[in-house]
Amino acid sequence: MSILVVGTVAFDSIETPRGFAERVLGGSASYFAVAASFFSPVKIVGVVGEDFPEDYLEIFSQRGVDLQGLKRAPGETFHWRGRYHEDLNVRDTVELHLNVLTGFSPTLPESYRDAEYVFLGNIDPGMQIEVLSQLRRMRLVACDTMDHWIQGSGEALRKLLRRIEMLIINDSEARLLSGEHNIVRAARSILKMGPKVVLIKRGEYGVLLFSDSSIFATPAYPLEEVFDPTGAGDSFAGGFLGHLARSGDHGQGGLRRAIVYGSVVASFTVEDFGLQRLTRLSVEEIEERYQRFIELTDFHT
Amino acid sequence: MSILVVGTVAFDSIETPRGFAERVLGGSASYFAVAASFFSPVKIVGVVGEDFPEDYLEIFSQRGVDLQGLKRAPGETFHWRGRYHEDLNVRDTVELHLNVLTGFSPTLPESYRDAEYVFLGNIDPGMQIEVLSQLRRMRLVACDTMDHWIQGSGEALRKLLRRIEMLIINDSEARLLSGEHNIVRAARSILKMGPKVVLIKRGEYGVLLFSDSSIFATPAYPLEEVFDPTGAGDSFAGGFLGHLARSGDHGQGGLRRAIVYGSVVASFTVEDFGLQRLTRLSVEEIEERYQRFIELTDFHT
Repeated sequence: MSILVVGTVAFDSIETPRGFAERVLGGSASYFAVAASFFSPVKIVGVVGEDFPEDYLEIFSQRGVDLQGLKRAPGETFHWRGRYHEDLNVRDTVELHLNVLTGFSPTLPESYRDAEYVFLGNIDPGMQIEVLSQLRRMRLVACDTMDHWIQGSGEALRKLLRRIEMLIINDSEARLLSGEHNIVRAARSILKMGPKVVLIKRGEYGVLLFSDSSIFATPAYPLEEVFDPTGAGDSFAGGFLGHLARSGDHGQGGLRRAIVYGSVVASFTVEDFGLQRLTRLSVEEIEERYQRFIELTDFHT
Repeated sequence: MSILVVGTVAFDSIETPRGFAERVLGGSASYFAVAASFFSPVKIVGVVGEDFPEDYLEIFSQRGVDLQGLKRAPGETFHWRGRYHEDLNVRDTVELHLNVLTGFSPTLPESYRDAEYVFLGNIDPGMQIEVLSQLRRMRLVACDTMDHWIQGSGEALRKLLRRIEMLIINDSEARLLSGEHNIVRAARSILKMGPKVVLIKRGEYGVLLFSDSSIFATPAYPLEEVFDPTGAGDSFAGGFLGHLARSGDHGQGGLRRAIVYGSVVASFTVEDFGLQRLTRLSVEEIEERYQRFIELTDFHT
C-alpha cells in the first residue's frame, strides 16, 4: 500500500561534535520518504527551488520514490542551518530561509488522490489541511507538528487534530500542546483533541504510544556513536508508517511492531550525516537490527 | 537468601511541586531495605542519632528488617533538605547535615558477616570498602556512588570497583566517572574498571544494563502522577537485588527480570512522599504491576 507524504525538501547545513555537512539533502519529507521506501512505495508532495540539484532527485529515484508531486518553483530551496551541542539532544537553529516554501500551495496530482496512508510532515497546519482535503480514500492519516505551529497556528492545528488518526510529536511539543508537564497526562489530554493514537518521541530515550485502551513504551536502540541526529524523528515516522502500510495491521501488536521498525530505521539515520546512512541501507540490515531490538528488550521469555 | 545493605538512614525534608514533607524517614539504606524486604530478608548497616524516633525504627521492624547493625550514636541524625523543580529530574540540595555520619566506622555484627548479597549504598567509598572487608562469603556485591565521591574520592572508588560485581549509577554519574558523554561508551569504559555488570538509571526514562556480552534496555513504568522522586534509585536497587537474592538466578534472563522488579518497586515509591507508598505496598501489587510491565513493553508476541 503506498504512502503519501507532504513536508519540506530542503538543504541542511549541519554542525555536530563529530563534524559538519554543508547543504546536504534534508527536510521532513525527504527523511520520511527515504525511510518509508524500505517498506512501501512513497509519493512526495513538496516544493524545491531552481537550485535543487539533479543528484538529490536521484537519491529519491533510486529508492523508487514518486516525485510527481514535488514541484520546482522559481527561487531558492528551503535552507536550514543548525548546530548540535555535545549533548546531542540540544540544538540551535543558526539560519532558516523558507525561500520557495513561502506561499507554496500544494496541489496533488490526480494519481496521488487515492493514497490510503498519509503522513502530514511538519509544515504549516493550514497546508496540512489543504493536502488532507484533496484526498478521497484515506485509511490512516498521521501528522507531526512543532512548537512554532503550536504557538502560532493553534486554531488551524486544533482543526487538523480533529481529522487525523495519529499525532507523532516529541515530548517537549506534547507538553507545550497540552499544557501538562507529566507526559502521561499530556498524552491523555491530546487524545481528547481528536487523534486516536498519540506517539511521543523521546530521542535517545525511545518512544511512548498512547491510545484510549493501552500504553506501549520502548527504549531507543543504544548506539556507541551518534554522528548526526537530524532527521531521526522523520525517519522514525517513515519506518513506522512504512511498516503499517506494508503489514496493514493497525491493531495494538501491529502498531507496536511498527514503532520498533521506526526506531530501527531512526537508529541507522543517526549513524552518519544527513541521509548518507539510509542511502546505503538494506532491508536485510533493518530485519537484522529488528532482531537485535528483540534481544535488547526481551525479559520475559 | 538475605541481603546486607550499608548506606544512610536519614531525615529527609522534601519539597516537590505536589507538596512537602518534613523530617520523614529517608536515606539510601532505608529505601533500599524497605524495597528489598518484599523479596528477601534484609540486614541494615548504618548509624542514626539520639533524635531518631522509635516510630521510624518501627517502619523497618514491620518489614522484618534486621537492625542489629544500625548503630545509635551521640548527636543528631543525618539530615537532607531538597527541593524539586517542575521538571522532577532536577533537584537542588538546600541543606545537608552529615551529623553522626561524620566519623562513622561500620563494624558488622557477627551475624552479618556471612551475608551473600550485598548492596554498598551511596556513602564514602572508604566506608564501602570497610564493610566489604568484613564479609566472608559474598556471592554478589553491588554498589552505588555519586558525583561527590567520583570527584573527591576517585582513588578509593577505583579500588572498590575492582572488588565488586555490579555498579548501579545514574547516567550523569556514569558520564562523570568515565569521561565519556555517549552512554554506551561510558558503560563500556566502566566495565573495564572492574564491575562485570553496569546498570545505568535514567529516571523516568528507564534503565540500561551492560555486560561484556549483552545490553538490555527498558523504559520506566509511566505514571500520571509523580509526587516525590526521592529514593527511586535506591528502591530500584532494592527491588533488583531483592529479586536476585530471592531467585538466585544471575543469568541474563534473571538480571533482566530483576531490573523490571526494581523498576516496578521504584514506580510505587514515587507515588507518595518518602517511604509512605512502600509501607502500604503488598507483594500482590508488585506482581500485578510486573504483569502490567510486560503488557507495557511487549511487541513481539
